[in-house]
Amino acid sequence: MKKESGTRYTRQERDALRSALAARQQVIKEQKLPVIVMVDGWSAAGKGSAISSTIRLMDPRFFKVYNMDKITEDEWRRPFLYRYAVKMPGQGQVAFFDGSYLDEAVKDYLSGLTNRKEFERTLKSIRDYERSMTDNGYLIIKIFLNVDKKTQKKRLKALQESKNTAWRVVDEDLWQNENYETFATAYQEARTATETSDCPWHVVEVGNEKDMEGDLLSIITHAIDGRLAEIGEKGRDRRPVKNPFALTKIKPLAKVKLEGKAVPEAEYRKELEQLQKKLSKLHYKLYRKKIPMVIAYEGWDAAGKGGNIKRVASALDCRGYEVFPIASPTPEEKSRHFLWRFWNRLPKTGHIAIFDRTWYGRVMVERLEGYCSENDWQRAYNEINEFERDLTDAGTILVKFWVQIDKDTQLQRFTERQNTPEKQWKITDEDWRNREKWDLYETAIDEMLQKTNTEFAPWTILESNDKYYARIKALKVIIGAIEEKLKEKTKE
Amino acid sequence: MKKESGTRYTRQERDALRSALAARQQVIKEQKLPVIVMVDGWSAAGKGSAISSTIRLMDPRFFKVYNMDKITEDEWRRPFLYRYAVKMPGQGQVAFFDGSYLDEAVKDYLSGLTNRKEFERTLKSIRDYERSMTDNGYLIIKIFLNVDKKTQKKRLKALQESKNTAWRVVDEDLWQNENYETFATAYQEARTATETSDCPWHVVEVGNEKDMEGDLLSIITHAIDGRLAEIGEKGRDRRPVKNPFALTKIKPLAKVKLEGKAVPEAEYRKELEQLQKKLSKLHYKLYRKKIPMVIAYEGWDAAGKGGNIKRVASALDCRGYEVFPIASPTPEEKSRHFLWRFWNRLPKTGHIAIFDRTWYGRVMVERLEGYCSENDWQRAYNEINEFERDLTDAGTILVKFWVQIDKDTQLQRFTERQNTPEKQWKITDEDWRNREKWDLYETAIDEMLQKTNTEFAPWTILESNDKYYARIKALKVIIGAIEEKLKEKTKE
Repeated sequence: MKKESGTRYTRQERDALRSALAARQQVIKEQKLPVIVMVDGWSAAGKGSAISSTIRLMDPRFFKVYNMDKITEDEWRRPFLYRYAVKMPGQGQVAFFDGSYLDEAVKDYLSGLTNRKEFERTLKSIRDYERSMTDNGYLIIKIFLNVDKKTQKKRLKALQESKNTAWRVVDEDLWQNENYETFATAYQEARTATETSDCPWHVVEVGNEKDMEGDLLSIITHAIDGRLAEIGEKGRDRRPVKNPFALTKIKPLAKVKLEGKAVPEAEYRKELEQLQKKLSKLHYKLYRKKIPMVIAYEGWDAAGKGGNIKRVASALDCRGYEVFPIASPTPEEKSRHFLWRFWNRLPKTGHIAIFDRTWYGRVMVERLEGYCSENDWQRAYNEINEFERDLTDAGTILVKFWVQIDKDTQLQRFTERQNTPEKQWKITDEDWRNREKWDLYETAIDEMLQKTNTEFAPWTILESNDKYYARIKALKVIIGAIEEKLKEKTKE
Repeated sequence: MKKESGTRYTRQERDALRSALAARQQVIKEQKLPVIVMVDGWSAAGKGSAISSTIRLMDPRFFKVYNMDKITEDEWRRPFLYRYAVKMPGQGQVAFFDGSYLDEAVKDYLSGLTNRKEFERTLKSIRDYERSMTDNGYLIIKIFLNVDKKTQKKRLKALQESKNTAWRVVDEDLWQNENYETFATAYQEARTATETSDCPWHVVEVGNEKDMEGDLLSIITHAIDGRLAEIGEKGRDRRPVKNPFALTKIKPLAKVKLEGKAVPEAEYRKELEQLQKKLSKLHYKLYRKKIPMVIAYEGWDAAGKGGNIKRVASALDCRGYEVFPIASPTPEEKSRHFLWRFWNRLPKTGHIAIFDRTWYGRVMVERLEGYCSENDWQRAYNEINEFERDLTDAGTILVKFWVQIDKDTQLQRFTERQNTPEKQWKITDEDWRNREKWDLYETAIDEMLQKTNTEFAPWTILESNDKYYARIKALKVIIGAIEEKLKEKTKE
C-alpha cells in the first residue's frame, strides 16, 4: 500500500485503526473493562485535537473527555489526586484525560508551589495510585506528546497569530518554552518515576498530524487487546504487594479491657459540655486555618457509633461538617474502585467529614461475605494505607475509631432495641446474622487493626460498654488531634 | 410553667420541641418524605447559629446543611436555580439551606446584576419551582430571620470587634445595613411573590436567641405534622395546574411525511463534511461567547438516534461537550424529583450537553408503564415547560429532536440487528415489547409534542427512514439555532 507523502500510515491504515478502536468499545462493555486514556505532554502539543481525531468513530455515549488543565477552587482544597480519582470511569466505560497529574506535578514543582521532597512524594503517590487502580481492574493508557523547543515555539506562535486561537495561549505556555530544558528534564524524571510494566508511558513525537493519529489509535487498541488477552478466560486477580508501611503493634480486641471504663452520669454531663465547647472553638480555628479533617468510625453493631457521632457533631458549626452514613454501595459505586465513593466524600480544607462506617468495609464485610476475592481484600490493607497517606500528606487530620463492646453487651442492646417500639427500626435480621459470625469478624478486625495501624493514621479503640465513657474519650482524642496539628502549623 | 426571664419559651418547652423534631425524623424516614428547610434573612441575623441549635438533637446522618452564601464559578455558569436543585434531598432526608434563592435574587437585583424585569422573572421562576417541588412530594419550609436596622448594625459591630468573627463581616453586609430600607422593600416584595399556601414564608423576629430557637423548632415541627396529616392514609396526589404557556400547533406523527425525505450517499458525504466544518467553527464561537447549549434527542427505538448524535458530536471539540445516555433512573435518582438528574447534567456556559433520551421519559415510558400516577405525568408537561424556560432564560440554546420512522422501517432495522452478530447487543426483548405498544406510544407522543411545543423550546421532527436525511437535517437545525443566538448576542 502506498503511504501518503511523508506519513507512516496510509489513509486506509488509519481508517482501519479507527474502526478497530470503535469495535473494541463493544468488547470493553461486554468485558466490563474500565479504561482511562491519559493524553499528556507539552503545551501546544495538540492534546485536544489528538483526542478529537482518536474518538471520531467511537460511540460518544460510552466515553467522556475531561479537560484537566484548569483546577477549580473546590479541587485545590482537596488532596492532589482527588480531581483525577473522582472522575474514574465505571466498568465498560472509557475516560479520556486531556492533561494529567504528570503535567500537574511537574508544573507545581517548577513553579515553586512544591519543593523537591513534595515533588518526589507526589510522583510516588501517583505510582501507587496507578498500581492500586490497575490491580483493581483498571486499564490506564498513558500517552505523552513530545515536541522539541523550536516546534513548540512555532506552534505557539501560530496559535497566537490567529484570532480564533490566540486566547488559548497563556503566559504559562510561553514560560514553559523559555525554560524548555528544565521542563524536559522534569518530565523525563516524572515519566521514569511512574513507569511500570502495567502502566507504561507511550511517548509520541509531535509532527505530522496523521502519523500522530495513527500512533495514538494503534497504542490504545494494542493496550486494550493486551489487557483482554491477559484477562483471558480465567480472569485476572492480582496478588498483594508487600505492605511497605511501618506498623505499630496494637492489642487484639480480646485483650481490650472494658470493665471499669465508665463515667458516672453527672460527671459525664459536665465533661461533655466542657469538651463540646472546646471542640466548637477548635472547629473555627480549623476553618480559618483551612485544615481538613476526617473522622472515621468503625465498630460492632449496637456499639454506639450513632450516639457517639451525634455528640461530636452537635459541637460543630453545621456549615463546616458532614456526616456520611456508609451503606452497601450503589451500582455506580460497585462499578468502580472501592475507594471511589470515599474520594468523592473527602472534605474541603477547613471542613470535617465524619464517616459512619468506612473504606474498611473492604476487609470486613466484603471479605467475610465474599463480595471480593481473597487477593482483593489482602491487597486492600496496603491500598487503604496509601489512601490514608495521601490524605495526611495533604494536611488532613485523620482520626480512626474502633468502637468496642463485648458480646454480652451487644446481646443486651439488641434485645432492648427489639423490645422498644421506637428503637425497633434500628435492629434487623442482618444484625442477628452478623452476630452469629462474631468470631469470624473478630479475626478479620484484629488483622485489619494490625495491618493498618500506621504512624500517620493510627487506630483509637473506644471502649463503649459504657457509652458515656466512649463519648468522652472520642471528644478528647479529636480535640487532642486538632491541637497537635495546630501546634505543628504554628511551628512551620 | 414559669418562663425564663424575657423569653416566651421555658427551657422545658424548648427541650420538648427539640425532642419532638428529633422524633419526627423517624417518621420522615418511614413516610419517605423529602424535606427542605430554608433559613434566609438579613446578614448577621444569625442563620447559622439558628440552624445549629435546631439540629442539636437530630441524627446527623439523616440531614445535610448547605451554606448557600458563596457561589462557585461552576455554579455561576449555570441557570439560577441549578445550585439549589442539585442539592435537593432524597426521600426521607432533610436538607437545611443556610441562605436561599430569595436572598440571592434580591442581592442580584439591588447590586445591579439583574434588571427589574429579570428580578421579576426570577421570582416567578422560584415560585414555579417550589410548586413543582411540592407537587412532586417535597416539603419546603421557608423561614426568614428579620432584624431591624439598628439591631443589625449592632450585631455586625459585635462580629467585627471579636478577632474570632471579624472575618465573617464583608463589605456586602455593611452595604446592606446602609441601604436597609431598600433591602427591606425588596425582601418584602420577594416574599410576597413567592408566598403560596403550600409554601408560605415564616418571618421570625431576631431578638432573644432562645425565642428564635423555640420559634424555629415549632415552625418546622408543625410544618412536618401538617404535611403528614395531609398525606394521611391515602397519600397525596396533586392535580395538574393549567398550562400557562403559549403553544404552537404541531402535526401529529401520522401526518409526518417520510417518503421522499432522502439524500443520496455522495451528496450526503459532501454535505456532511461541509456542515461538520461549519458546526466545528460555531462551537468555538459558543465557547468564547460562553453560551451554553442543550441538544435533546427523543425518538423510536432504532430510529437512528445514536448514529445521528455521533455525526453531531464528531464535529465538536471533545473538551466542550458531553453526551448523556439516559437509562432508567438509579435508586438515588428515583428518590428525587424526576428532573433532578437533568439539572445535574446541565452544561456550563460555553459547553454543549447532548441527551440521548431525556426528561420526556416522564410522559412516555413512565406514563405508559405506570411508573408514576396519572396526575404526575399530566402535571409534567407544565413542569417540563417551566424547566425548559429556566434553561432558555439563562441563555441556553435548546434544540429538541423527535427522530421519526414508520413501523415498517423499525421492523426492518430490528430484524437486521437480530441477524447481524455485531449488532445483536443493540436489540433486546424490551424493544420488541415496546414495539407492541406502538399505538399507545404514538398517542402519548402526539400529546407530548403538542403540549410542550413552546415558542422558546419548539420541537423539530427528524424524518429518519433515511438516516442520511435525518443527520443532515439535524446538523442544519443545530447550526441554524447557534447562528440565530449569535445574531441576537451581537444585537445586544
